Amino acid sequence: MTNLKALIDPQRVALIGASDTPGRLTARPQSFLMTHGFSGEILPVNPRRETVQGLPALPSVVDSPKHIDHAYILLDADPALAALEDCAQAGIPVVSMLADGFAESGDAGRARQDRAAAIAREAGIHLIGPNSTGIVHIPNRFICTSNAAFAAPDLRAGGLTVLSQSGSMIGMILSRGLARGMGFAGFASLGNEAVTDVGRFGQWMLEDPHTDSFALFLETVRDPKALENFAKKARDCCKPVVAYVIGQSDEGENLAVSHTGALTGASGAISAFLRDIGIAEVKVFDALLDTPRALVRGRPDQARPRTATVLTTTGGGGGMVLDQINAHGVGIAGCGAKTRNALEPKSISLGSGKLVDVTMAGAKPDVMKSVIAALLDDPETGVLVVAIGSSAQFNPDLTVDPLVAALEEAKEDHAPLVVLPLPHAPDTLKLLADRGIPTFTTPESCAEGVSALLEHRSPRNRSGATLPAAVTALLDAAQPGLLDEYHAGQVFAALGVPQPAQVFIPDGGDQPGNLGLNFPVVAKLTSPDLPHKTEVGAISLNLGGHADLTRALRDMRAKVAHTAPKANVTGALVQEMATGLGEALIGLTRDPRVGPLITLAAGGTLAEVLKDSTLRCAPVDLATAQAMINEIKSFALLKGYRGHATGDLEALAHSIVAISQLAQHPRVIEAEINPMLIGAEGVLRLDALIRLS
Amino acid sequence: MTNLKALIDPQRVALIGASDTPGRLTARPQSFLMTHGFSGEILPVNPRRETVQGLPALPSVVDSPKHIDHAYILLDADPALAALEDCAQAGIPVVSMLADGFAESGDAGRARQDRAAAIAREAGIHLIGPNSTGIVHIPNRFICTSNAAFAAPDLRAGGLTVLSQSGSMIGMILSRGLARGMGFAGFASLGNEAVTDVGRFGQWMLEDPHTDSFALFLETVRDPKALENFAKKARDCCKPVVAYVIGQSDEGENLAVSHTGALTGASGAISAFLRDIGIAEVKVFDALLDTPRALVRGRPDQARPRTATVLTTTGGGGGMVLDQINAHGVGIAGCGAKTRNALEPKSISLGSGKLVDVTMAGAKPDVMKSVIAALLDDPETGVLVVAIGSSAQFNPDLTVDPLVAALEEAKEDHAPLVVLPLPHAPDTLKLLADRGIPTFTTPESCAEGVSALLEHRSPRNRSGATLPAAVTALLDAAQPGLLDEYHAGQVFAALGVPQPAQVFIPDGGDQPGNLGLNFPVVAKLTSPDLPHKTEVGAISLNLGGHADLTRALRDMRAKVAHTAPKANVTGALVQEMATGLGEALIGLTRDPRVGPLITLAAGGTLAEVLKDSTLRCAPVDLATAQAMINEIKSFALLKGYRGHATGDLEALAHSIVAISQLAQHPRVIEAEINPMLIGAEGVLRLDALIRLS
Repeated sequence: MTNLKALIDPQRVALIGASDTPGRLTARPQSFLMTHGFSGEILPVNPRRETVQGLPALPSVVDSPKHIDHAYILLDADPALAALEDCAQAGIPVVSMLADGFAESGDAGRARQDRAAAIAREAGIHLIGPNSTGIVHIPNRFICTSNAAFAAPDLRAGGLTVLSQSGSMIGMILSRGLARGMGFAGFASLGNEAVTDVGRFGQWMLEDPHTDSFALFLETVRDPKALENFAKKARDCCKPVVAYVIGQSDEGENLAVSHTGALTGASGAISAFLRDIGIAEVKVFDALLDTPRALVRGRPDQARPRTATVLTTTGGGGGMVLDQINAHGVGIAGCGAKTRNALEPKSISLGSGKLVDVTMAGAKPDVMKSVIAALLDDPETGVLVVAIGSSAQFNPDLTVDPLVAALEEAKEDHAPLVVLPLPHAPDTLKLLADRGIPTFTTPESCAEGVSALLEHRSPRNRSGATLPAAVTALLDAAQPGLLDEYHAGQVFAALGVPQPAQVFIPDGGDQPGNLGLNFPVVAKLTSPDLPHKTEVGAISLNLGGHADLTRALRDMRAKVAHTAPKANVTGALVQEMATGLGEALIGLTRDPRVGPLITLAAGGTLAEVLKDSTLRCAPVDLATAQAMINEIKSFALLKGYRGHATGDLEALAHSIVAISQLAQHPRVIEAEINPMLIGAEGVLRLDALIRLS
Repeated sequence: MTNLKALIDPQRVALIGASDTPGRLTARPQSFLMTHGFSGEILPVNPRRETVQGLPALPSVVDSPKHIDHAYILLDADPALAALEDCAQAGIPVVSMLADGFAESGDAGRARQDRAAAIAREAGIHLIGPNSTGIVHIPNRFICTSNAAFAAPDLRAGGLTVLSQSGSMIGMILSRGLARGMGFAGFASLGNEAVTDVGRFGQWMLEDPHTDSFALFLETVRDPKALENFAKKARDCCKPVVAYVIGQSDEGENLAVSHTGALTGASGAISAFLRDIGIAEVKVFDALLDTPRALVRGRPDQARPRTATVLTTTGGGGGMVLDQINAHGVGIAGCGAKTRNALEPKSISLGSGKLVDVTMAGAKPDVMKSVIAALLDDPETGVLVVAIGSSAQFNPDLTVDPLVAALEEAKEDHAPLVVLPLPHAPDTLKLLADRGIPTFTTPESCAEGVSALLEHRSPRNRSGATLPAAVTALLDAAQPGLLDEYHAGQVFAALGVPQPAQVFIPDGGDQPGNLGLNFPVVAKLTSPDLPHKTEVGAISLNLGGHADLTRALRDMRAKVAHTAPKANVTGALVQEMATGLGEALIGLTRDPRVGPLITLAAGGTLAEVLKDSTLRCAPVDLATAQAMINEIKSFALLKGYRGHATGDLEALAHSIVAISQLAQHPRVIEAEINPMLIGAEGVLRLDALIRLS
């Protein structure tokens, strides 16, 4: 028996702490399993009762004469721990736990959770939760959950599996999905993810033949490696994954932290990570339900344009959809020449603008079929979006038949098709779902889904080049904490990042007579204790000659002795002054959830105020660095906007790649160059910061 | 009989061109009026039949022995015009027209529309359309429409009146509204608005006692004055108005233009106008349906904080709502001290973070009632958002009763309350609608609605100060077209906008020996033909002395003679060079739909690339100018960000006010100062452009 079978189609399930009182939370799993026709054996475990809901009760799983392959512990935190030990003793391979009072609730809870994880790991149990409302598999009728939403009598089977850290979201997704005619395969409430996270669970579910796609509701990422592996394998077997992440706002992020017991971090980090591993993130909740179906039905092949064509029977509604899709950054194609030529003999009017509006003629199924068929096979159609008016409400068959007929006749490489009924049209949605035609329910969700459909989203190769041996040697030899600018600069130089001509005068060393530098120069005191030199007076710009330099070095020492008397000054760094056409900030940080990130931002205070920056998981390759540069709006100037001189963005890209390699050294906590000067030819690092663990 | 009665509750309605064939578009109005129980008299007009759908048919409205007070013309364009003449002859006060083929379809159509408008105006007819699917008033059972959506058997009466230029959107709004338990008062499809626009119709509907709020679906604005008057009167009688505007995207905007026969313009213009006149604009379609109910139930009084408190029974869903609301710019308050104190004796747990999460205890109605009551009366609650979990799906009464009970007991100045059921919960939505409790159906819609609820949105006083007589005199005397910089500058000077010390040397005049200016100076050739001086070499910066100036003037003339030989050079302007801490662009334009607009943008190419600008209808008062300045992100630097020197933004505000006054002179098509230099004390206009009609 595979683990997958124990997970979603067990032979025997124990419900530890099952209640006999109808309506109680702990009575629900048994009640759902019984009413929805689970074919395995249900074993309520309750030492205080002979029977529970009509089935004989066991005092403990340890007492079961038959092998149990799945248990759901419905007890409070401390008794749940004891029950988990029983499960270990009974050799149960999959156990989920309902109780809260674990990592999300302080130190005592954290200790409890560590204990649960230790028991599970030692016994080889796949532990789900704690804080899990359980596991559901609708095609297998395994409705092992305490979530009230599963009281719905008509649980429709389908291909979407939902993985959520929040249990309550599962009810929202199920009920809203059923209302729009969707069916589901599995649901898993991962809770605190003490042992099994979303990525691990997803990998198991990839083997479920019923599951063709995934929707993830995430509050944090606890095991980025597992999630990445899941995304990669899902890609390999063509099962698309769509995610909605809570924490778009400052307060949402705070909430995610306290709600999940996770550590900390910026909301952009998870988005960068998901993009990196090839998971489509949606920002509109409805799109989490609607988008996976569209992705399952296939993306346009490479020969098709990255545009959408909107076909409608009603101008206002179709126009609204077109407007939202275009506002989402997707180009709009009108009716292609091939389609016009095909339909001209049939005297079908298609409107004149970019919206293909067949107006009232759309009420005639043969007209609609002809137009849809022509557009599906037109090479100018990227994605075909059909926005249907009132016929969707009153004539579901009239609406759906032409779509089905056109799809049946279409060539294999036809454009992908998605449908948005404009009115409230549950019957049409159900019919379309039955026929496997992807639908959207709001213009906003449709716009996000079409955008996801058109995006080339393949997981990026994240293995960077090997860190040069010279860099590793420097980092291995360095003390923990902040490096002084000279030593940090040595690391960047070893990475191949250009720097101005410079001389380092170590403290206690002889002051060289001729520095061999061209004046003017800048002089800085180097110290591991002074990351911000300007504030303490440890930097002097624009020194025109040797006398100025000598005076500046003396003055700086005096100032720092006053402003930062405890600072350990290691020496002085003298660099030739340099000017450029623009500035950038390049920074490497480590997010506690998703790992190393590389930030690129336009330099200067104005760009800082305007938040002109972008983020990726590190290390990055050259193509990714170039994509990052293209996302910085201010850099338009460096591409020659309005006669501005052109900067060497290619050199900047190479530096981003080089700096991102530092992610591969485990001791690097933080690294930053600010500013990186961008010249007409090449770039120059004007500063250097590295912090080691 | 008032016009309102003829409009939405006529005694006799003529359906000109009514068809006897069930299902046909032109059969619908009669069929709907009959099935939905309209109590007035229905007169089908059809010269080819004795009866239509069982009622005796008239050959023409002219033949009616009784006075007809409302007619709907269902004929094609040309016969519809003839029918309109019959209506004029018969003295029918309200006529709507279904046909297309008018202004939206080229010159012939435009001529037809002019003719229709002329007939209507001469006869004093309130003409609705052409391109109108008709008028509906549900409480009056007057369902005089060709829109298929009104075949719905259960048209629920309510307070919301929907005004739309697009007829098809009415079906979408009706069907989606009914599905969420909403009721409606009126629907009007205004079509091409040949005579009656949304604003005019809205003003009439303000007198309808059934209507308590409005939802507008707009593709353009054709009569800004009428819309402004409507908004003002709506405010006076406390009937909130919410609008959704198509054209958020470039393509959407193009579409709006071709789709409506409107002229041209930027999508931001209508948003600026709506904000100005106090209409709440929503960007999420669902919010157009949901928000008016929330606004009807009243906004928080001034003493309440501008924050939202989210109460939930389920952490994940509640967190998602909180996240979306905060991402919409609304601050989140947690549970206030007063509430904690009130609930402590009852041992009700409220969670620890900003989300007020009562978890499973929320299933107990008395607990929910206590928490809701406490939060409603807590002075720290701005708006109370209740996000309800699975009980909304299975126990509508259990969900709604505590809300109703808490509201009944609440003091008069309690915080506004809105509800978002997380699962699909049509029964709960209907119950809540019956009790008059505002609901939202998606987290995105809820976030927009809460934001609208908290915004102080009173119509701005748009009457500017009188334009100074000196300014009027200068403008009246000027030639049409572009003014040269000197003469444009005179206008700005007369408005009180500061400029650098300058001397104008008119062509043909003597060149003054001593200019009385401090060097360095800038010299420019002035010409109405050279709006862009740099391109043609008509500007020289940083001239250090008299010899430089003389040489520059000679060189510029030579260059311009070459680059723009036909330019009429009127003279030379010499100004002292000036530097500032920042730059702004201030521009006045006229939008063909909503009239004069004032734009403020940060100066410089970077700000241009980053689109750091804002827009208002002109003229503006000082408070509005200050608000505009606060919207320019780059100006954070001028407020002392990171030690940057502080700029005189107060002086900038005064200049914005002054320049915006130019909107009051009808000949000013365009006026711009770019750049306006912002100094530590005061501002200086460095350029001047004015174009007159």
